[in-house]
Amino acid sequence: MKTYLDCIPCFMQQTLRAGRLATDDEFKIKKLLDDTGDLIKQLSMEKTPAEVGEVIYAKTREITGIDDPYKEIKAKSIAEAKAMIPDLKTILKKSDNRLITAIRMAIAGNIIDFGMSKKFDLKEDLNRILAQEFAYFDFETFENQLKKANTILYIGDNAGESVFDRILIEEMSKKTYYAVREVPVINDVVFEDALESGLDEVAEIISSGSHAPGTILTTCNAKFNQLFKSADLVISKGQGNYEGLSDEKRPLFFMLKAKCHVIAQDLKVKENDIVLKGINV
Amino acid sequence: MKTYLDCIPCFMQQTLRAGRLATDDEFKIKKLLDDTGDLIKQLSMEKTPAEVGEVIYAKTREITGIDDPYKEIKAKSIAEAKAMIPDLKTILKKSDNRLITAIRMAIAGNIIDFGMSKKFDLKEDLNRILAQEFAYFDFETFENQLKKANTILYIGDNAGESVFDRILIEEMSKKTYYAVREVPVINDVVFEDALESGLDEVAEIISSGSHAPGTILTTCNAKFNQLFKSADLVISKGQGNYEGLSDEKRPLFFMLKAKCHVIAQDLKVKENDIVLKGINV
Repeated sequence: MKTYLDCIPCFMQQTLRAGRLATDDEFKIKKLLDDTGDLIKQLSMEKTPAEVGEVIYAKTREITGIDDPYKEIKAKSIAEAKAMIPDLKTILKKSDNRLITAIRMAIAGNIIDFGMSKKFDLKEDLNRILAQEFAYFDFETFENQLKKANTILYIGDNAGESVFDRILIEEMSKKTYYAVREVPVINDVVFEDALESGLDEVAEIISSGSHAPGTILTTCNAKFNQLFKSADLVISKGQGNYEGLSDEKRPLFFMLKAKCHVIAQDLKVKENDIVLKGINV
Repeated sequence: MKTYLDCIPCFMQQTLRAGRLATDDEFKIKKLLDDTGDLIKQLSMEKTPAEVGEVIYAKTREITGIDDPYKEIKAKSIAEAKAMIPDLKTILKKSDNRLITAIRMAIAGNIIDFGMSKKFDLKEDLNRILAQEFAYFDFETFENQLKKANTILYIGDNAGESVFDRILIEEMSKKTYYAVREVPVINDVVFEDALESGLDEVAEIISSGSHAPGTILTTCNAKFNQLFKSADLVISKGQGNYEGLSDEKRPLFFMLKAKCHVIAQDLKVKENDIVLKGINV
């Protein structure tokens, strides 16, 4: 997915938010905003927003000297999500179709996104998403491909959401590689966050090599690229991964909530719609 | 009021919105956003946001060749507001204190602001504001000064809001100068908008000389500056005028709804609070 003009004010907003978390020094934050302004000027709109995000967050680390401004927020998100596990398991037990319910839960987890301006209430949104109509629901194809699959590449998105991913991975019960970002970027899940979410108990955690808040194959490491080619089933969670992978040619499934109007427009859905969408399947 | 860091993403958002209204040419809009990025870089945070707005909207006119991107929107706002006059007059008739009700109406009109990202519903907001508690309510001082005043300088803000201003001006029943912007900037009221709102029937419409979405005295014309000094009572409507006048030394009254958290913070009120605040009074 290319960058839309609407992404530009959003980049500034994200820069400000990350800067504020990293430092109280208003001059440093102003410098960060200035540099983001420069980046935008050089920006090719053919790049994905995630690629721009990569440069912005690298700049945040450089100017503020803070490696992971969202560290505390991520720990809190994971703890909050983990506290919900018993309830989620009860809901799963009672559900008519466990796989669909687990998919809904994994998508509900996708609201934990601090790249967005919107506020969210995890419990409230979960309940809504458990009952919400899908805008795309390629479930039958997904279920068929899952049945035949021996290996799954599951590309994680946000820390906290990772806890919900674990439920779906457990439910699918296949050999799964759970891909995380190489470095902290927004509140995206990195190795330690995945560990803290208990993903090592249900999957092999691997780094995609990505420094971006998304997956751009050319900047991912060899192991990830090899798995992306060879895995029987690829699941891409969230907006950032969609941005980088929406034009890829292999079969893959996107699971996300369209949290901004730009992504919604690109997917031809409405804002706040939930999506299970297969491409090339 | 100085510019806050939070204003910066908002400038980009405003640029995008004005650019989109003025042209469909994505390259021109990108150029506009690039130039706004440059402006932000040069920006002294000691300037008021309205001063920055002035440069942004001048740039919009220059790059798109469109003098008044909000022309249609303003005409629609004025028509919508005018259609509400009979209802407003009925409410006024029935009210315990006509002056307070007219002030509330004038403040309710202040929600017609296309500089903001927020959507509004004129009728719904009006009903809310007619019943809402004031965060500042310097009514007694205002009423006293009004009684003694022979001349009023009333500084308008948005087109459409101007129709509600008319009701208050009629109610105050004094010699009033209604100040408008010199050139179109966002949806702010200019001379023709004031005429279309019927303000010539209750006031003398004058241009403040301002090219900014607010009032910065050093860029206003001599007549306005003279009136600002000599008028017995000065009423400043809305956020943009507040930004430029909040540090002035003469007695004046601000009437506004705090529509963004930056203004709310500066005023030490909550977002969405309504304000009748006198300074130096």
